[in-house]
Amino acid sequence: MNRDSSTLKSAIIENFGTPCAVIDLDVVERNIKRAQTLCDNAGVKNRPHIKTHKSPLLAKMQIAAGAQGITCQKLGEAEVMANNGINDIVIATNLIGAARSGRLAVLQKRVPLKVCSDNLFSLTAYSNAAREADRPLDVMIECDTGQKRAGVETPREALALARVIKEDPILNFAGILFYPSQDSWPQTQIFLDEMVKGLSYLGYQPGIVSTGGTPNFSNIGKLLGATEHRAGTCIFNDRMMIEDGFATQENCAFSVYSSVVSRSGTERGILDAGSKTLTSDTGGLQGFGLILEYPDAQIHKFAEEHGFLDLSECANKPTVGDIVRIIPNHVCVAVNMFDKLVAVRDNQIVEVIPVEARGLLV
Amino acid sequence: MNRDSSTLKSAIIENFGTPCAVIDLDVVERNIKRAQTLCDNAGVKNRPHIKTHKSPLLAKMQIAAGAQGITCQKLGEAEVMANNGINDIVIATNLIGAARSGRLAVLQKRVPLKVCSDNLFSLTAYSNAAREADRPLDVMIECDTGQKRAGVETPREALALARVIKEDPILNFAGILFYPSQDSWPQTQIFLDEMVKGLSYLGYQPGIVSTGGTPNFSNIGKLLGATEHRAGTCIFNDRMMIEDGFATQENCAFSVYSSVVSRSGTERGILDAGSKTLTSDTGGLQGFGLILEYPDAQIHKFAEEHGFLDLSECANKPTVGDIVRIIPNHVCVAVNMFDKLVAVRDNQIVEVIPVEARGLLV
Repeated sequence: MNRDSSTLKSAIIENFGTPCAVIDLDVVERNIKRAQTLCDNAGVKNRPHIKTHKSPLLAKMQIAAGAQGITCQKLGEAEVMANNGINDIVIATNLIGAARSGRLAVLQKRVPLKVCSDNLFSLTAYSNAAREADRPLDVMIECDTGQKRAGVETPREALALARVIKEDPILNFAGILFYPSQDSWPQTQIFLDEMVKGLSYLGYQPGIVSTGGTPNFSNIGKLLGATEHRAGTCIFNDRMMIEDGFATQENCAFSVYSSVVSRSGTERGILDAGSKTLTSDTGGLQGFGLILEYPDAQIHKFAEEHGFLDLSECANKPTVGDIVRIIPNHVCVAVNMFDKLVAVRDNQIVEVIPVEARGLLV
Repeated sequence: MNRDSSTLKSAIIENFGTPCAVIDLDVVERNIKRAQTLCDNAGVKNRPHIKTHKSPLLAKMQIAAGAQGITCQKLGEAEVMANNGINDIVIATNLIGAARSGRLAVLQKRVPLKVCSDNLFSLTAYSNAAREADRPLDVMIECDTGQKRAGVETPREALALARVIKEDPILNFAGILFYPSQDSWPQTQIFLDEMVKGLSYLGYQPGIVSTGGTPNFSNIGKLLGATEHRAGTCIFNDRMMIEDGFATQENCAFSVYSSVVSRSGTERGILDAGSKTLTSDTGGLQGFGLILEYPDAQIHKFAEEHGFLDLSECANKPTVGDIVRIIPNHVCVAVNMFDKLVAVRDNQIVEVIPVEARGLLV
């Protein structure tokens, strides 16, 4: 059998139509192994962020390859993972909505979670949830070292929260969570050192010291005292990671197969993949995705179900009916648009993997 | 019982958590009635675009209020609607992926559809699908009058396609589909007049002449010969429609309830609604959504599950734990992020409506 990419394209359109989200499992496995090796070599545990794939099956592949556990960004993601037998879960955000709805308590009763906080309000909500669950809850302090995301901005604030956790009868102080920018590693070290010193005065251990981000694999091992790294994108990679230098096209496991559905006008065309397929998230790049067959074509605008192609730079232009593969700018948000991923190996369809933890309210 | 918005907020967070997608059914009903009246007064049929809500229940409310049928943008949407008994469906795009996968034929066998084309490739695919279904298929010609979307750019091309349809033994020429910009109404009239004249030389009737878009309600009735209008957004409205002048805040039926989860830094804050909730689609506006309680707060950036608030212009700043209601810039893409909508009336939860036609591949 001729297992080439055009045979696969025919199989995809005949079995599923377009647009279709496809992952290459051979590339996925290599990417999982690469992230694990990078963590192993740096002496930190690997706790992949499953927000990228939202699939218990893929999370289990990461754990089988050596990951300590997983990171989630929503309680709904953690629920789906726990329902599939995964029980070492960090939820890397202030879970206020989930705590107040009672769903945190319900899950905590079943699986001991590690949650994050940067304020007294979420600590109170966690304490209530832990009492409702009747099980001590591990809490990490989220710290910010310049990204201006969530996270306390000073070690002093972080220590104050650590004390509150320690004094709460049902909360455990479990560690420190950072998401440093690629160039804020030195500030992060200063923050961590002060924090560890402060904790030691109080007689506390730092616990888990977690860093995050696929781009930060370039810094892995640099933060002395770090114990874990959580990266999401690296399981699939995307155009942002190519631009970043972390990945090449060959490392990109996810693509959207799309048909050219219109070619009105000589210098333009329309794809059947729009903002409801690839999302309007540019990731700071020009255009919305890289078309592997026509790298000089630019997806310059979206309607909801249409991608607008500027073909003026293409010597060889696509025709209506052509199927193209698009590497999205930001894979995490693109995966989130699909209920299922078609998994292939060696240009053959092998499986359909549900994106189980998507579309959830909380 | 005290039915105010703060009671409703408590009920939302206790029953569902945040972020939560909420629609006010009283406003929905008024919006449906308004669109119907605008069409009735202009003497055109109303064929609402269900891409906005993707819910058979809401589509049936539109039909009960007088709509002729519905418009879909994907075959998957049409499948879900047909499964719920809706049988007058226009799919307003070249359905190449769906035709080649055989799914168009399967649906056409069950429900006679009206599909659209702007090229010979999709006409051939439609002809094959109709033969497979063993049922004649209605085809409309999609025409472009300046938006540079899909659609042939000249009446001559449109007429050539109409002839191909007429000569095909199993395709029916069913009409002409436009999506004029708000200021291209005069060109659209010229296009339509030439088209009708050409069709008449060939002995054909124009059939359905369809215009589209909620903003184009301001032009409804202006295109002589138009028979139908398809508008999506008007069932919910959004910040774009407020900016456009079509809607006020009181006409906005959909909002996302979100918790303030972090207030690190004096002039900033973090919401638990990010690009996976509201999407990165700005609709050309500044910031991502209007916060009803803090209209001077700007959602200036997104992470996947976080909205970044700039509070520098807010005299009165939100605190952690506050629940806010956000009108998205573009409601059609925001609804598409949720599996269900919580429906309320008079500040009480009355129903949970599944967004049935979302997340589908084709």
